[in-house]
Amino acid sequence: MRTIEWEDGVVVTIDQTKLPHELALLKMKTCEEVAEAIKSMKVRGAPLIGVTAAYGLALTAYHSTARNKQDLLQELKESAETLRRTRPTAVNLSWAIDRVLRKAEEAAEDVKLVAKAVMDEAVRMADEDVEVNRRIGRIGAELINDGDVVLTHCNAGSLATVGYGTALGVIRAAVGQGKRVRVFVTETRPKLQGAKLTAYELKRDGIPVTLITDNAVGYVMYKRMINKVIVGADRIVKDAVINKVGTYEIAALAHENEVPFYVAAPTSSFDLTRTAEDVIIEERSPEEVTYIGSVHVAPEGVDVFNPAFDITPFQYVDAIICEGGILFKPNYEAVLSVYKGR
Amino acid sequence: MRTIEWEDGVVVTIDQTKLPHELALLKMKTCEEVAEAIKSMKVRGAPLIGVTAAYGLALTAYHSTARNKQDLLQELKESAETLRRTRPTAVNLSWAIDRVLRKAEEAAEDVKLVAKAVMDEAVRMADEDVEVNRRIGRIGAELINDGDVVLTHCNAGSLATVGYGTALGVIRAAVGQGKRVRVFVTETRPKLQGAKLTAYELKRDGIPVTLITDNAVGYVMYKRMINKVIVGADRIVKDAVINKVGTYEIAALAHENEVPFYVAAPTSSFDLTRTAEDVIIEERSPEEVTYIGSVHVAPEGVDVFNPAFDITPFQYVDAIICEGGILFKPNYEAVLSVYKGR
Repeated sequence: MRTIEWEDGVVVTIDQTKLPHELALLKMKTCEEVAEAIKSMKVRGAPLIGVTAAYGLALTAYHSTARNKQDLLQELKESAETLRRTRPTAVNLSWAIDRVLRKAEEAAEDVKLVAKAVMDEAVRMADEDVEVNRRIGRIGAELINDGDVVLTHCNAGSLATVGYGTALGVIRAAVGQGKRVRVFVTETRPKLQGAKLTAYELKRDGIPVTLITDNAVGYVMYKRMINKVIVGADRIVKDAVINKVGTYEIAALAHENEVPFYVAAPTSSFDLTRTAEDVIIEERSPEEVTYIGSVHVAPEGVDVFNPAFDITPFQYVDAIICEGGILFKPNYEAVLSVYKGR
Repeated sequence: MRTIEWEDGVVVTIDQTKLPHELALLKMKTCEEVAEAIKSMKVRGAPLIGVTAAYGLALTAYHSTARNKQDLLQELKESAETLRRTRPTAVNLSWAIDRVLRKAEEAAEDVKLVAKAVMDEAVRMADEDVEVNRRIGRIGAELINDGDVVLTHCNAGSLATVGYGTALGVIRAAVGQGKRVRVFVTETRPKLQGAKLTAYELKRDGIPVTLITDNAVGYVMYKRMINKVIVGADRIVKDAVINKVGTYEIAALAHENEVPFYVAAPTSSFDLTRTAEDVIIEERSPEEVTYIGSVHVAPEGVDVFNPAFDITPFQYVDAIICEGGILFKPNYEAVLSVYKGR
């Protein structure tokens, strides 16, 4: 199944906080439930939260009792604000919201047609996401050779998208071409998406995977145990890639050890109106660090700084793989030209 | 109190696996119990496991019923082998064992005098450790300025030593001189010594401390939130510092961000007969990564690579602080000359 589905006024997805031990479905009937799921990271991954937000607006449209277009637009705008407040860093969220709102505004005056336009657009975005990921996979697989050992971070897999995945999509496509690829995945503290989601996905697909702590990245590079890195992105700005915290560390170590560092992301993650300085890096609660499950792993009341993302300047990025092609040694102009051509 | 004490045939220490929530004393009466405590990391930290091993031999000597020197020496050698097998990477362990065995061999023929020589040497080494740490602290404090924000990794504090600490000893000495110092500490996966031990020690001492995940190191450097790094060492060889896994990552990032990277360690951690290539980097059990307390955080049966240490070539080290002085931009000759002069 896809990671998210629309079923007549109900959005069905996987509660990712329950993996890898339980495949629990989460059924959401209101935009508020969708917002809560994004905020609590039951649903996560930049491409997926974009589509999930679109479905949140679709729920508002589906269940609305508004009598005219203007009232429905007002409801949609309120839902949009609720969704925008959930998480600040991944640009796909506002990209998806803006795209759906535009379709609603462009629709005819009939309130039913507005609602239909919103729902159709959400479904279209979900379909597009899978198609874009498959395209990124096909394109990126060129960079992967038979016998490669690839390091990835966090989860940029089918669980981070509607299906197939970005970074893991590239690996899946390479494996699909008959290349033997092994993967090292960081556990990715604090939320452990690498251990809980990426290791799970790859094991399920029969792709050999080895789990390491985030601390072991330097050692596996020093020992030449991996020869490529591929990660996803939450936002690509004029001068940097913003992705899960720890990405910059891996990129700097890859640079130092002359290991190619690749980023796989759809152009819906591009935000070329901003530089890294202008992006809000989400800081999450101390408890994500001080508790693991119910286990308290730090002294009572200790101060914690818990940024969810970090900033990797382009100088550390050997290539960005998007549905428009591969941008080697990316810079603003190159990224802009692919962005405009999408 | 000191982290370890000798009380008439009983070695009393803190069970560090119970911290920070419980200060449980561990009382050991046999060398086997000591070996088990080292292996299971109830006792950890390179200087501390050296002294603990010496006390293990002291327990063998104290409780021995050997009738002559030769028999006692044989028992001590068997205990020594048990201790050596516990953990391979920190050199302090074999340094301490060799030193105690030499004293036993040099002792007079009377078996009681041999036993006394062993016990006296173990107590002397514990006293020395505290004195050496205080000296390292005094010397290293020169490198710390009023207002500094210092990053540390793992625990190189009083809990890693008999008392005072190496890296944290430097910070304590600087604070003792009236300098305002704030500390960022990495949680240090997989065993979380940063979260559980360093945060605890610093909080107890009233030194401001902020806990971060290992993944956030790059971001705090990028944002210039810290301006120095100081860590301990498990072994300093001809060409590199071997320390808790993750150290090399921090050193490479510090280098990239022009943040000074300092290592504080006694000369008992120096091993100038070897290069990094010749040192066994301990690999510990997968369960350290896949379980946190009783919480299972990875898919059943996933492959894990869990090195406990990594290798930081000297090129990333701005200074080594030892009881013999500060070695700026260390190289083999400089390290050797301090080592010989000890």
